[in-house]
Amino acid sequence: MIIINENLTKEGYKCSFSNVNKEVKEFREKYPQTKLFNLGIGDVSLPIIPPVLKAMTKAVKDLGSMDTFKGYGYYYGYDFLKTAIIDHDYKNLNISFDEVYVSNGAKSDTSNILNLFSNKASVLLMNPMYPVYFNSIVINGNPVDFLDLKEEKGFIPEIPNKKYDIIFICNPNNPLGITLNKEELEKWVNYALKNKSIIIYDNVYEPFLPKNEIHSIYEIPNANKVAIEFRSYSKKISFTGVRCSYYILPNTLILDKKYKKCWNERILNTFNGADYIAQRGAEASYTEKAEKLINKNINYYLENAHFLKKELIKMDFKVFGGESSPYLWVKTKNNYKSWDYFIFLLNNLNIIMIPGIIFGENGDNYMRISALGNRKDVEGAIKRLKEYYK
Amino acid sequence: MIIINENLTKEGYKCSFSNVNKEVKEFREKYPQTKLFNLGIGDVSLPIIPPVLKAMTKAVKDLGSMDTFKGYGYYYGYDFLKTAIIDHDYKNLNISFDEVYVSNGAKSDTSNILNLFSNKASVLLMNPMYPVYFNSIVINGNPVDFLDLKEEKGFIPEIPNKKYDIIFICNPNNPLGITLNKEELEKWVNYALKNKSIIIYDNVYEPFLPKNEIHSIYEIPNANKVAIEFRSYSKKISFTGVRCSYYILPNTLILDKKYKKCWNERILNTFNGADYIAQRGAEASYTEKAEKLINKNINYYLENAHFLKKELIKMDFKVFGGESSPYLWVKTKNNYKSWDYFIFLLNNLNIIMIPGIIFGENGDNYMRISALGNRKDVEGAIKRLKEYYK
Repeated sequence: MIIINENLTKEGYKCSFSNVNKEVKEFREKYPQTKLFNLGIGDVSLPIIPPVLKAMTKAVKDLGSMDTFKGYGYYYGYDFLKTAIIDHDYKNLNISFDEVYVSNGAKSDTSNILNLFSNKASVLLMNPMYPVYFNSIVINGNPVDFLDLKEEKGFIPEIPNKKYDIIFICNPNNPLGITLNKEELEKWVNYALKNKSIIIYDNVYEPFLPKNEIHSIYEIPNANKVAIEFRSYSKKISFTGVRCSYYILPNTLILDKKYKKCWNERILNTFNGADYIAQRGAEASYTEKAEKLINKNINYYLENAHFLKKELIKMDFKVFGGESSPYLWVKTKNNYKSWDYFIFLLNNLNIIMIPGIIFGENGDNYMRISALGNRKDVEGAIKRLKEYYK
Repeated sequence: MIIINENLTKEGYKCSFSNVNKEVKEFREKYPQTKLFNLGIGDVSLPIIPPVLKAMTKAVKDLGSMDTFKGYGYYYGYDFLKTAIIDHDYKNLNISFDEVYVSNGAKSDTSNILNLFSNKASVLLMNPMYPVYFNSIVINGNPVDFLDLKEEKGFIPEIPNKKYDIIFICNPNNPLGITLNKEELEKWVNYALKNKSIIIYDNVYEPFLPKNEIHSIYEIPNANKVAIEFRSYSKKISFTGVRCSYYILPNTLILDKKYKKCWNERILNTFNGADYIAQRGAEASYTEKAEKLINKNINYYLENAHFLKKELIKMDFKVFGGESSPYLWVKTKNNYKSWDYFIFLLNNLNIIMIPGIIFGENGDNYMRISALGNRKDVEGAIKRLKEYYK
């Protein structure tokens, strides 16, 4: 009998978000009348803004007429979108056309990129971290170590003494909601330069950063020798259901010089380009009018986050993140283990938070709270918590 | 220094469509005034039909309002689309909901599915064949053998004596344009049942089949124990630029019983679902009105194919396929090697055909001609050929 990929069967390969979803689903079936206050949502809740919708409607129309029809796009993305990306997201950062790869989702992208490297390359992950990194790495078969993030250090990762080939950095961080500043990131770039490592820089929460923060790792000198940066339109323009992302694979990475050719041919053979409609929508996000509306939406989520943080602190919760991020990382009360606290909150206060254990063992006394839901849920949840913890 | 994936650097890993594109591009730059007659096109040329456009425009609108907004979809596809697929494409074939996986392109799907199996699983490919199969397998690292398809047998593959774990069958065939009938496919299903092999059944050209042909491999008894079937909306509703596909991973495959759970978790960790707009468009293709318009488009391409076949035979070309397929497989004249003939046709008659060598060594005396272009190009190319071969 044909053998299945043993990496798919390995222990530790799991997606515990599904455990959470299963539990919530069962609750809803059991108590269909009970209103749940969802602070667990990793999805956006605000709809797509009008200028982006308009561009997408126009794109659909393009596809209906012989003269404007678009078939297979360019494998690496349309020039119109790449131009917008370079001009806006990488202004003055000297990113060239052939370094931008448009794609259909950062989750797939950060997983697929592992295929560029030998599966013997060692990987360093943070603990806690976004769990699909770990699962993707298990599927790919790489050896992996975890860097413990500690509450007493504010969850800021410390540079390891050991050499690793690949480092995953999510900044602003999911689930912690904290952001490494330029100085902290510089340490990692220097580590990578010294050890000839590659940084997988997951920058999908960049839209939540204030102007003065570091918006691209390439703002750091020589980062283009060691970092591959990933971004997404999911949160920025509510494209979680539309799917559009991109990443920068610099020509200057310290790898065997064949790597760009190899990667380009891999794409040719496994991908047929991102959706034209999504790319037109993404392009439309770069106008001044769109940017104003995007800021308004981002501020809506950030106001949720700031309100949650303020109120939770009032209730004596220990809270991290939630400043320039839609996520807050909150210590459980009474030494609750996170899964138990999740069950307690669901059943007793009808609030959904994500148990920290999903993000690694070091998360087991914390909950991830999301500000991506609607204001009413946020306010309702705080009211419930206040009633209980008064 | 970190080592890149050696499978990406292996010899034989190439995408020679890019060589063709490069040659055509250079020609166009050199002779911008010269009209080229494109019989090389693997893309569709007819725009998307109105009922599908309408559903997509509506779907875009849905995304603009809080009440109808859709974020992350279900990883395996929306129920509305799966229902339509089961009711129409698999009527009476007993395919269940959890066997249908909606995705964003058959090229990615037939490549990704390799990840389900050990990379020690042996693969059998046809020669000639669609080259991205081979390249994906080289990237994945499996041992691979080729089954020679012979002109004197009408390019019908003969069942091998040796056992292989995975067999790729593209039917109707790209590049050959021929179709294995039910009897021929039954032989392969029986081979797979006997040897406990898995058939990767690439059925993306199914829309070109007449009613009485076999539209799904699951029409063959017990095929659901050995076959994974892949389909796409690319050709059916001109979705090459939109991206929507699906595949059937039966619950009954003769694999370790963990395989479905493993595969589902792999998807959870590497994919965030297909585009909502595309899925609404695909759903709309199943109405009676849409089906009529789809048939009209398919007939347009088939009429191209039949006209090409008739005229090429008149000029004493040896022609295969082109009956229930948009592709014709044509022997070169005067023992021309396919690349030389490609260059000759491009430069002397300004016709683009795809050199057979791209599809494997056994294709080196043949050209793939596509009927997916517009009627004028088809007629213009035939006129040129007639003038030359009169």
